[in-house]
Amino acid sequence: MTAPFADRLTLRTRELGHPLCVGLDPHLDGLPSLFRRGSMAPGAKETADAVAEFGLAILDRLAGKVACVKPQMAFFEALGWRGIEALDRLLRAARERDLLVILDAKRGDIGSTAEGYAAASLREEAPLRADAMTVNPYLGRDSLEPFLAAAERSGAGLFVLVKTSNPGSGDLQDLPAAGQPVQGQVAAWLAEASPRLLGETGWSGLGAVVGATWPEQAREARERMPHNLFLVPGYGAQGAAPADAVAGLRAGPAGGLEGGIVSSSRGVLFPDGSDTTSAGDWERAIDRAVRRAAGELAHATSSSS
Amino acid sequence: MTAPFADRLTLRTRELGHPLCVGLDPHLDGLPSLFRRGSMAPGAKETADAVAEFGLAILDRLAGKVACVKPQMAFFEALGWRGIEALDRLLRAARERDLLVILDAKRGDIGSTAEGYAAASLREEAPLRADAMTVNPYLGRDSLEPFLAAAERSGAGLFVLVKTSNPGSGDLQDLPAAGQPVQGQVAAWLAEASPRLLGETGWSGLGAVVGATWPEQAREARERMPHNLFLVPGYGAQGAAPADAVAGLRAGPAGGLEGGIVSSSRGVLFPDGSDTTSAGDWERAIDRAVRRAAGELAHATSSSS
Repeated sequence: MTAPFADRLTLRTRELGHPLCVGLDPHLDGLPSLFRRGSMAPGAKETADAVAEFGLAILDRLAGKVACVKPQMAFFEALGWRGIEALDRLLRAARERDLLVILDAKRGDIGSTAEGYAAASLREEAPLRADAMTVNPYLGRDSLEPFLAAAERSGAGLFVLVKTSNPGSGDLQDLPAAGQPVQGQVAAWLAEASPRLLGETGWSGLGAVVGATWPEQAREARERMPHNLFLVPGYGAQGAAPADAVAGLRAGPAGGLEGGIVSSSRGVLFPDGSDTTSAGDWERAIDRAVRRAAGELAHATSSSS
Repeated sequence: MTAPFADRLTLRTRELGHPLCVGLDPHLDGLPSLFRRGSMAPGAKETADAVAEFGLAILDRLAGKVACVKPQMAFFEALGWRGIEALDRLLRAARERDLLVILDAKRGDIGSTAEGYAAASLREEAPLRADAMTVNPYLGRDSLEPFLAAAERSGAGLFVLVKTSNPGSGDLQDLPAAGQPVQGQVAAWLAEASPRLLGETGWSGLGAVVGATWPEQAREARERMPHNLFLVPGYGAQGAAPADAVAGLRAGPAGGLEGGIVSSSRGVLFPDGSDTTSAGDWERAIDRAVRRAAGELAHATSSSS
C-alpha cells in the first residue's frame, strides 16, 4: 500500500505553496484549433484521439506545477468507449508525471454495484486507477462503505458530495432535517468515519466536496469536519473569488491554509489566447493561466492565515 | 423523434402481460463455466470478450420475452475501457432484438457536465445510446434539467432515484424535512415536471426509482406521483416478494397493474443450474428463470388489480 492519499496530497501542496487542482473537462467545443481533427463527431476515433492528445499536452504543462488533476468522467463517457480509452491513457500519463488524480465521477450505488465502481478505480490493480474519486451520498451510509473499504486497502481517497457549487445545490442539501441541513447529516458521517483514512499530517482522505460558491457554508462544514480534506470546485469560471475558494481551509503547521484542494477547469484549460494553431502560443497561454490561478490561490492561502 | 419512452415501455408490457425487466449485472465471479476465458483479470481483453459473449447469449434468451433490460454500468466500468466497449456491443444488440434499454448509471452532475452524461446516452446519436437512464437527485433540481431537456428532444426516459432498495436508503431519503421526507421532496419535483415526458398512455417517462423492499413507501410515492413510471429494483435476489414489487403500480385500462417495471438481476442471470459447460443446459436454466420471474409478476399484476 502506498502512503495515505491525505498525506500525499498535503505534503505536495505544502511543497508547491498553493492548493490548485486542474479539472480536466475536455469540452469538445472548447478544444483549440491546434488539436481539432476532422468533424469531431462524439463517437469517432479521431475525436477521442484529439481529446487524448490535448489532455497529454495539458499534463505536460502541469507536471511539477500542481499537486493534482481532476478528470471529469462525463466528458470522456460522452465520446463512448473510445473516450474511456482516452481517459485510460491520461490516467497513466498523469501517474508518470507524478500528478495525483481525483477521478470526478460522482458515483454512488449499493452493495456489489458500488464494489464494481470501487474496483474500477480505487483498487491497486484497478483498470481506471485513480488516487481518489468523488462519490454521491444520496443512497445512504451503507452505499459509501464499499468505496471506503477499497480506499482503506489501497491508500486511496474519497470526496463525498456535501455542498455542491451549483445554484440549485440547496434544493436537497440545505433542507432543514432533524435539527440540521441535509448536508450537515452527510458531514457528520464523514467526520465520524474520518479516522479510517487518516494520515500522519492529521488530515483524512475521506474528503468532502464543498463548492467555492458557498464560503459561509464552507466555514460551517469545516467546523463539522475538522479533519476531512475538502475538494472545492467552482473557482474561476463558475465565479468564486480566491478568498471564497479557500474559506473552508484552515491553518497548517507552517501558518498557511491547508486541508483541501481548489479546482479550476475552464479557466486553466481554455484561457484567452489558447485557441490558436501555434504550439508555442498555446503553451504560453496555458502556462500563464496556471501561473495566475496558482499565484492567486497561493496569495489567498498565505494572506488569510 | 421516436415515440415517448413511456408509451414504448407501457405498450410493450401490456402486450407481454408482465413488468419484468432483466438487470444485466455481469458479476465476474458469477459467470458460468461455459463463458469463462483465461484468468478473468478485470482489465484483460478476453475478460471483456467473455462478458460480451455472456451478455449477447442472455439477450438472445430474453428477446420477445421481456420489455426491457437494465445494464448496470458499474460492472462494465470495472473492466476498464474494454468493458465499456463490451457494453457498447450489448446496447446495439439489445436494440436489434427490440429490447428497450435502461442504462443504470445513477449519474448526476451540474451544468455542462450533466450535459456530457446526457450526450453519452440520451441523444439520438449518442455513442452509448439507451432508451432511458437512471439519475441521482442530490445535486438539486437544476442538475436534472440537462437530462430532462435531452430526453424531451430524443423521446428517451429518465428514472430519478427517490427511494432505493438498500437497508441504509433511509439515512438521507427518509429524513423528515420541511413537512415531508427528503424523498417526498424529490417526488414532488418529478410529479410537477411529469408533463414534459408524458405519453399518450397517460404515463410519464420522467420516472422514479422506488425499491421493491419498501412497499409501504412505494404506495405513498405513487400517491405523490400519479403519472410517473416506476423502476422497481430489489425483487428476487434482494429479497422482495412479487406482491411487494408491484405495490407502486396501479390499475391500467385493461384492469391489470401497470406504470412501471420490476427489475431482477442475479435471479435471472445466475439461476440454479446455470453454472454449466453445456450450452443447452445453460439455455434451459435461463429460460426457466425468465419464465418463473415473468410468471410471478404476471400473477401479481393481474391478481392484485
